Amino acid sequence: MKHEIYIVGMGPGREEDMTQEALTVLDSCDVIVGYTVYLNLLGERFLGKTFLSTPMRQEVERCRMCYEEAKKGKRVALICSGDAGIYGMASLMYEMSAEYPSCELTVVPGITAASSGAAVLGAPLNHDFCVISLSDLLTPWEQIKARLRAAVLGDFAIALYNPSSRKRADYLQRACDILLDAGAKGTRACGYVENIGRDGETAHTCTLQELREIQVNMFTTVFIGNSQSVIMGDKLVTKRGYQIGAGARARAKERG
Amino acid sequence: MKHEIYIVGMGPGREEDMTQEALTVLDSCDVIVGYTVYLNLLGERFLGKTFLSTPMRQEVERCRMCYEEAKKGKRVALICSGDAGIYGMASLMYEMSAEYPSCELTVVPGITAASSGAAVLGAPLNHDFCVISLSDLLTPWEQIKARLRAAVLGDFAIALYNPSSRKRADYLQRACDILLDAGAKGTRACGYVENIGRDGETAHTCTLQELREIQVNMFTTVFIGNSQSVIMGDKLVTKRGYQIGAGARARAKERG
Ligand SMILES: C[S@@+](CC[C@H](N)C(=O)[O-])C[C@H]1O[C@@H](n2cnc3c(N)ncnc32)[C@H](O)[C@@H]1O
Ligand SMILES: C[S@@+](CC[C@H](N)C(=O)[O-])C[C@H]1O[C@@H](n2cnc3c(N)ncnc32)[C@H](O)[C@@H]1O
Repeated sequence: MKHEIYIVGMGPGREEDMTQEALTVLDSCDVIVGYTVYLNLLGERFLGKTFLSTPMRQEVERCRMCYEEAKKGKRVALICSGDAGIYGMASLMYEMSAEYPSCELTVVPGITAASSGAAVLGAPLNHDFCVISLSDLLTPWEQIKARLRAAVLGDFAIALYNPSSRKRADYLQRACDILLDAGAKGTRACGYVENIGRDGETAHTCTLQELREIQVNMFTTVFIGNSQSVIMGDKLVTKRGYQIGAGARARAKERG
Repeated sequence: MKHEIYIVGMGPGREEDMTQEALTVLDSCDVIVGYTVYLNLLGERFLGKTFLSTPMRQEVERCRMCYEEAKKGKRVALICSGDAGIYGMASLMYEMSAEYPSCELTVVPGITAASSGAAVLGAPLNHDFCVISLSDLLTPWEQIKARLRAAVLGDFAIALYNPSSRKRADYLQRACDILLDAGAKGTRACGYVENIGRDGETAHTCTLQELREIQVNMFTTVFIGNSQSVIMGDKLVTKRGYQIGAGARARAKERG
């Protein structure tokens, strides 16, 4: 018999933002493993489950915990915020899987911050886009810089994850400077959303020039439009390119 | 009173892949507007709702239908597959919103094909990635080409949407040639998933060289790893960069 481990994306935070599938899988598990902040987001529905955690940064140990619990015969879920496969634990679990041939992994996707944050801001990613993390814990800064430059070169809209932390307070500013240096205009339409789907959710739009002066925290996802994106009221919109058509333009004109 | 319109991402297809929020919003609406294929994916739960549609390609008319129904006092949901803001209708609805000042838009995010397809393949997008559509209906091919080249330059993993259609049967091959020409190796680890979360779901891994010989259909999402991605059994894994550590290596060695 295979030992089953589910790697579950829980979306931005609220139970309502989880898929039915994710909820059903968590219901069926004996043990839920995760970073404490995420475990604390799980509500009453999961009372009675065994919750296990390791301190922040101990991701390898957290994954190993899943495998060890599964080998004891427990049905295990490893929870990640957002999507389990976007800066989540899915890849590390697969990398370690050769050590645990009796265990079978299933990834259950969740709403990633790019999607949930975009919904709050309107439609900032409604054309080709890149997702880039500014964390240089696991990636050399030179690589991050090359990706930011390539994103401007391809005129992608961009979602930035991990835009800041206590030790990296100026990383967003550095990223903006790289984008500007690569040719993005200071007037480029941008936005950011803090605490998506959690208490204290706040969204803002601004220009790229303004963004470089803003201090965001680590619970923020930053959106940089492509060269055609526009700010409409409090929304950031990247057009897909539909022609709204003569009829619409005429009606709009009529109304003045 | 504002007329409420919800732009709802329904995920890859099954009701279980929708968020609780999306289900609750659809439950609360009188009218559900969408492309027929998506309306047909909605099950019994939604019997009794008014379903409205327009033929394919008539996206502007479909959006206008939402606004007109809302103005009649109906609570309206516009459904999109996957996420409503990723090659979905969110941006077009915002672009048209100035014509309908009495209407208020809310975007409800859904699991996009990049996330749901990635879950099937393992963890192909577990580091910085780009999402690129190969459809040149609304985007000049030169722009698509520039984005593919930039994606290689930045060494991003890539999710390709709209990889093919009857009229564009050779577009995936052309895209692969552009990636190869831009410096991606023929051995680059790739994969593709057809009918994610629907009847007939199938997943495959292959190299980039092999991918250029494969005929996929329009219900497929294609994944191109970054230069470090690996195929492990039937999975495609893009590493985040954790050091699994000496302990793990020793244990693995012990077992041979
Ligand atoms: C280690 S990554 C995890 C991403 C997660 N797996 C996902 O798919 O959303 C952490 C970063 O994701 C973003 N993020 C995740 N949840 C968020 C939320 N609820 N509000 C704002 N940003 C969030 C932030 O940029 C944060 O620094
Ligand atoms: C117009 S785009 C819509 C994308 C959608 N809004 C999303 O976020 O997934 C259509 C493309 O999305 C991808 N796609 C959407 N649903 C899919 C599914 N269930 N299986 C495979 N690919 C899918 C395919 O590449 C398809 O050609």
